[in-house]
Amino acid sequence: MTIDVPKGLKGVVVTETYLSDVRGREGFYHYRQYSAIELAEKRTFEDVWHLMLLGTLPSEEERERFIERTIPLRRVPGALRPLLPALATSGRDGGPLDNVRSAVSAAGAVRGMRPLYDLDPGQRLDDALFVSALTPTLLTALYRLAHGLEPVEPRDDLTYASNYLYMLTGQVPDPAHARAIERYLISTVDHGFNASTFTARVIASTGADLASCVAGALGALSGPLHGGAPSRALETLDEIGTPDRIDTWVRDRVLAGDRIMGFGHPVYRTEDPRSRMLSGIAKGFGGGLVDFAHEVERRVVDILAELKPGRELHTNVEFYAGVVMEICGIPRSMFTPTFAAARTVGWSANILEQAADSKIIRPSARYAGEAPPQPVPAV
Amino acid sequence: MTIDVPKGLKGVVVTETYLSDVRGREGFYHYRQYSAIELAEKRTFEDVWHLMLLGTLPSEEERERFIERTIPLRRVPGALRPLLPALATSGRDGGPLDNVRSAVSAAGAVRGMRPLYDLDPGQRLDDALFVSALTPTLLTALYRLAHGLEPVEPRDDLTYASNYLYMLTGQVPDPAHARAIERYLISTVDHGFNASTFTARVIASTGADLASCVAGALGALSGPLHGGAPSRALETLDEIGTPDRIDTWVRDRVLAGDRIMGFGHPVYRTEDPRSRMLSGIAKGFGGGLVDFAHEVERRVVDILAELKPGRELHTNVEFYAGVVMEICGIPRSMFTPTFAAARTVGWSANILEQAADSKIIRPSARYAGEAPPQPVPAV
Repeated sequence: MTIDVPKGLKGVVVTETYLSDVRGREGFYHYRQYSAIELAEKRTFEDVWHLMLLGTLPSEEERERFIERTIPLRRVPGALRPLLPALATSGRDGGPLDNVRSAVSAAGAVRGMRPLYDLDPGQRLDDALFVSALTPTLLTALYRLAHGLEPVEPRDDLTYASNYLYMLTGQVPDPAHARAIERYLISTVDHGFNASTFTARVIASTGADLASCVAGALGALSGPLHGGAPSRALETLDEIGTPDRIDTWVRDRVLAGDRIMGFGHPVYRTEDPRSRMLSGIAKGFGGGLVDFAHEVERRVVDILAELKPGRELHTNVEFYAGVVMEICGIPRSMFTPTFAAARTVGWSANILEQAADSKIIRPSARYAGEAPPQPVPAV
Repeated sequence: MTIDVPKGLKGVVVTETYLSDVRGREGFYHYRQYSAIELAEKRTFEDVWHLMLLGTLPSEEERERFIERTIPLRRVPGALRPLLPALATSGRDGGPLDNVRSAVSAAGAVRGMRPLYDLDPGQRLDDALFVSALTPTLLTALYRLAHGLEPVEPRDDLTYASNYLYMLTGQVPDPAHARAIERYLISTVDHGFNASTFTARVIASTGADLASCVAGALGALSGPLHGGAPSRALETLDEIGTPDRIDTWVRDRVLAGDRIMGFGHPVYRTEDPRSRMLSGIAKGFGGGLVDFAHEVERRVVDILAELKPGRELHTNVEFYAGVVMEICGIPRSMFTPTFAAARTVGWSANILEQAADSKIIRPSARYAGEAPPQPVPAV
């Protein structure tokens, strides 16, 4: 018996999850039972990591234990180190997303990671913490090596977010920058079901090891249709250049029916809650870029209301994420990789949830070609 | 609007395909309009590769052109070479499946492979040929390096199958061995929809580059639930040891309700057509292992008929694939990687088909946890 479903599986419920959901109409999304934005306002990245992988927000003692457990996992295993310089210089654009996919894959092998199917839940959690703790170190090391810089060893006394900026730049960050990036990272840990999360879960459903699942998800995330390239929105700001050029630029785009990067989302019918939060963070920093970004936002909304009345368009997560990352000193080629670092936590949680199920995901396809068997012609 | 479907998407038709299908009840499967087994009997691996990626069996001239086009792609790109020794020694068991996943991922970066979404069909085909031509070289190099041997450079005057055995062993193979392996490789190029093929297509649907898709598929293939580990069946033969022990061993397993490796298939309700072909190939070689394997097959079928009447059980592709690969000198840790080399062609064809669609595969999940938003407790 077969069931036909819409192409792309739109609206097809493939699993239950206890991890997260997006309510597009309400402009709301959550991790387990908590508003993701409220978590970003009130908690640390480590707390949310704990929530996603262990199921609950940690008590103070649990938080300490979790930090002690994950800090050593930040360090690159010895056998992986010689690989990084060679991987770092192989990518197409100095952006390390392709290379971290290879590095995470190799990290799994170096660790001797075993199939999820052969592990108990505690061992699976160990692997999930290993990959999610290590990924920021791999990303920053690959970035620095690609730019002729020595990797910066992680520092045990810094939080996940501070340490991330520290490994990237070699400087202990301004606490306001670290906190801004921490809130951004928390807000991108997960976002309902999407193609990379689904990829991770399909691979996990075969019982493969956790690194295979995350490497696959990193591949899916690199796809242009997956969306999420915060640097594009900033490129839009660059292209407009100066406030006096906003109106002409926006009018031309709207009249041509072109997409404006940083605006619009396939799920949210109202303001993207991540955008609202990041806009507030940007405002807190202030400065020319922030003023310009807000002016562009205002003009896009106004001009759209004038030229295409009834069509609401809001900034999406990309728009102010780019602005905030730029302010905090993250190079543009690291915008999507920064997103990927946080999302590794979400993928890991999804992989653990899928692995607990042990039912392979194996749909069907309908053969639509010429009826077989046609005789194989002789050469 | 949402649609609920069975867990694991069993029977859920997610796409149309022109590539292949399995008719489990009839014990028949095909590539495009041709019986896969007939192709394995009558054609070369290169012909079937051409059929899968270009859509037709080649004429003599097309075959020559295809061979000329793919032979240079067998060579490892210079920038990838320094990575292989480090990758080779990182795996968990000397079997290079984990490592080739990393190597294929890195090969994509080294090539500067661009997202499928940004490429025209001709460029996509170039990338597909690159990955499917290179994978056997990567696999054999990783195997040899892991065993302290120098990689063997591919030879331009050998066929895909001969060259594969040559790169693995360093010896030009006996033509009968090369042809046996060629038939095996043809028979495993594709096999309808399965978890690794689906993984490749989900990643391709995001528009990611082809190496991301194949790396993801290799990850899925490594999952124990994906099935397909021809070495396990051979281990069963080892465990039984001698003909006089067959009956006791089999009776114990059947009475205990244990699965017997190399027997049974989730789709075929009759003989696995691949098993029938491989059994014939094995018989052609003859020898103690072949006689023993056939005796085990006969006794399993007989004892099952006696102890569990009405429950038919047949050898699957693993059983005689292991025997044939052992006879042809392929080390056991290379059995699944050999399968993976052939399957790279099938994945590539599926990736190209999916990329032509440009519709992202993004299903839904139902949130089943505690209702949000619960207030985030203070620490």
